[in-house]
Amino acid sequence: MKKISLLGATGSIGIQTLDIIRGHRDAFQLVAISAGRNLDLVRKIIIEFKPEFVSVQEKADGETLRTEFPELSIGFGIEGIEEAAIYPKADILVNAVLGSVGLSPTLRAIQAGKTIAIANKETLVTAGHLVMDAARRHNVQVLPVDSEHSAIFQALQGENEKSIEQLILTASGGSFRDRTREELQGVTVSEALNHPNWSMGAKITIDSATMMNKGLEVIEAHWLFALPYEQISVVLHKESIIHSMVEFHDTSIIAQLGTPDMRVPIQYALTYPDRLPLPSGNRLSLAQVGKLHFSEMDFERFRCLKFAYDAGKTGGTMPTVLNAANEAAVAAFLEGKISFLQIEDLIEKVLEKHNVIMNPDLETIQGVDEETRKSVISLI
Amino acid sequence: MKKISLLGATGSIGIQTLDIIRGHRDAFQLVAISAGRNLDLVRKIIIEFKPEFVSVQEKADGETLRTEFPELSIGFGIEGIEEAAIYPKADILVNAVLGSVGLSPTLRAIQAGKTIAIANKETLVTAGHLVMDAARRHNVQVLPVDSEHSAIFQALQGENEKSIEQLILTASGGSFRDRTREELQGVTVSEALNHPNWSMGAKITIDSATMMNKGLEVIEAHWLFALPYEQISVVLHKESIIHSMVEFHDTSIIAQLGTPDMRVPIQYALTYPDRLPLPSGNRLSLAQVGKLHFSEMDFERFRCLKFAYDAGKTGGTMPTVLNAANEAAVAAFLEGKISFLQIEDLIEKVLEKHNVIMNPDLETIQGVDEETRKSVISLI
Repeated sequence: MKKISLLGATGSIGIQTLDIIRGHRDAFQLVAISAGRNLDLVRKIIIEFKPEFVSVQEKADGETLRTEFPELSIGFGIEGIEEAAIYPKADILVNAVLGSVGLSPTLRAIQAGKTIAIANKETLVTAGHLVMDAARRHNVQVLPVDSEHSAIFQALQGENEKSIEQLILTASGGSFRDRTREELQGVTVSEALNHPNWSMGAKITIDSATMMNKGLEVIEAHWLFALPYEQISVVLHKESIIHSMVEFHDTSIIAQLGTPDMRVPIQYALTYPDRLPLPSGNRLSLAQVGKLHFSEMDFERFRCLKFAYDAGKTGGTMPTVLNAANEAAVAAFLEGKISFLQIEDLIEKVLEKHNVIMNPDLETIQGVDEETRKSVISLI
Repeated sequence: MKKISLLGATGSIGIQTLDIIRGHRDAFQLVAISAGRNLDLVRKIIIEFKPEFVSVQEKADGETLRTEFPELSIGFGIEGIEEAAIYPKADILVNAVLGSVGLSPTLRAIQAGKTIAIANKETLVTAGHLVMDAARRHNVQVLPVDSEHSAIFQALQGENEKSIEQLILTASGGSFRDRTREELQGVTVSEALNHPNWSMGAKITIDSATMMNKGLEVIEAHWLFALPYEQISVVLHKESIIHSMVEFHDTSIIAQLGTPDMRVPIQYALTYPDRLPLPSGNRLSLAQVGKLHFSEMDFERFRCLKFAYDAGKTGGTMPTVLNAANEAAVAAFLEGKISFLQIEDLIEKVLEKHNVIMNPDLETIQGVDEETRKSVISLI
């Protein structure tokens, strides 16, 4: 029985994680959660899964829950998330919170010796060196939950990492895959939120449309698999059937395929190194799909991917700036304050004027993150 | 340094095995070979690789070599092949002979504790139960060399066999993929030998065109991976880029991809569980390939595949009859004695009249094999 602490329980990944736990009651037990402001869903989770500790964003919501569920331990705010992250009974932390708020709970959980299943890519993007270094020191496994990184992780099982030629991330191209840059002028929020293959949260769907999502994944892959950026490539594959690949130095490529169902990588992180049947999973029929398409990635068309490679190669605080600028710009787009193409313009401007600090500690990262967001807002 | 005994050194797989050894002189040493009647090539191999033992088909050719290379140990005929198979200094036997003549040397080598790299699929088709049972008793590994089985074997690394949902073999469709049955009337030998993707020997190229090759591979997979036929499927994939796949019960599929180069699976069998760079290997660019196609297998169009599934499920001596009838019929087609479609007609007739013997021993198998060939010839 694996005991699970789940951060971001009411988000897209969180809900799918709960579905996995629901399907394997004999294998998994939910002991702690953190959530935002969706109290209705939090109540349902408490009643169905009976976690022992629940943290919510606002103190007042915590008080409300305390009255309704007097037997429950309650937390709130960032301290609450951290308490959930290091909840003593938990074996594994599923970090499915959104954005760089996921960083400090991850570090705390690593120090507490928890296995980390990481869906919060910003943690690795913004502080990969701190996270992976802490994981090594505390002999803790960091397991990917992103479908691409899970695909690579699955492809690497039983292989010697020294045989890796390159990692090949596949990119669907997002909602605007077939549009030229000119056609991106004036696209609306609802058009951008209409992803062709995956049903995901709003922020990651926009990141898919700008290709920043793939850029963040490249940086994430760099840290998770300890490979230089020269050994990480991206290929356009609009069907999202091959979730990613590893090429070895004997020219052999191992790929992981499947229908677009985030529950597969979530469950793999929970069952690793074993597998369990997926509850009501849809099997892939390649004959039914018929064709898989692949094409070269266009770095002119998808400028955010170029920004990400450059920021990753520069290192230091540069990926923190990339990530924070992107979060602030996407938020502004979702609020209707800027146009779609302004997302990348803002990110570019902020990256250009940043003076990189190498080997930043947590405090420096948090400072740069905060400054960057302000800087983006001042430019709008 | 792995010491290799190579049966069928002058055939297609044999020559490619030599190329792998040539590229990794520090990893591999050729100590024994068997060959047929291509003395010129045998001489070149002796001079370049300096094996200690050489067996040829004919006694007279053996005498000739003895005069030319007095320091060499020489053998001939089936005894010579068996002597090469159990050559004491060899760690691994690469069995790349053609047809069911490969069976007894494989069994002898297993008894002698050699690791087996098996390119001779007829051995497993005709006597899989004897071979795999002997391998278990002698704690010997049987490593696949066929590209499909190597793909499955690679995909299974680091996985628990209990998680397998099914094996998915890919089939290119061979030289007549796009022809209807009517269009197969009167096709010539040279048309049939023109395989679109792979450069292989004549017999296996014809087997690809009839789809019997895939049928033999299904039976081979049954034995190599100890799975029932219900868990082995075939999908048409004309590019031969995905070499085969394993679907797990969490719906995840692991596939092995690459350019069509038989040296990749040959080398993997020799380096397993590690990998080495492939000498002058061509890397796969999916973006350059552009599209991969998949479609359902048509058992009416490809009757030999149906024969193979049926013979495999019946078991006993039925796969022996399937294989021997196929070898005799293909030989007759290559000699211009029968038409292309008569290959399957002959196989069907012989299968229909066979009274299956369950759990046959080696002698029974050899008897049935011989009878079957005679029976095919009598029908022509």
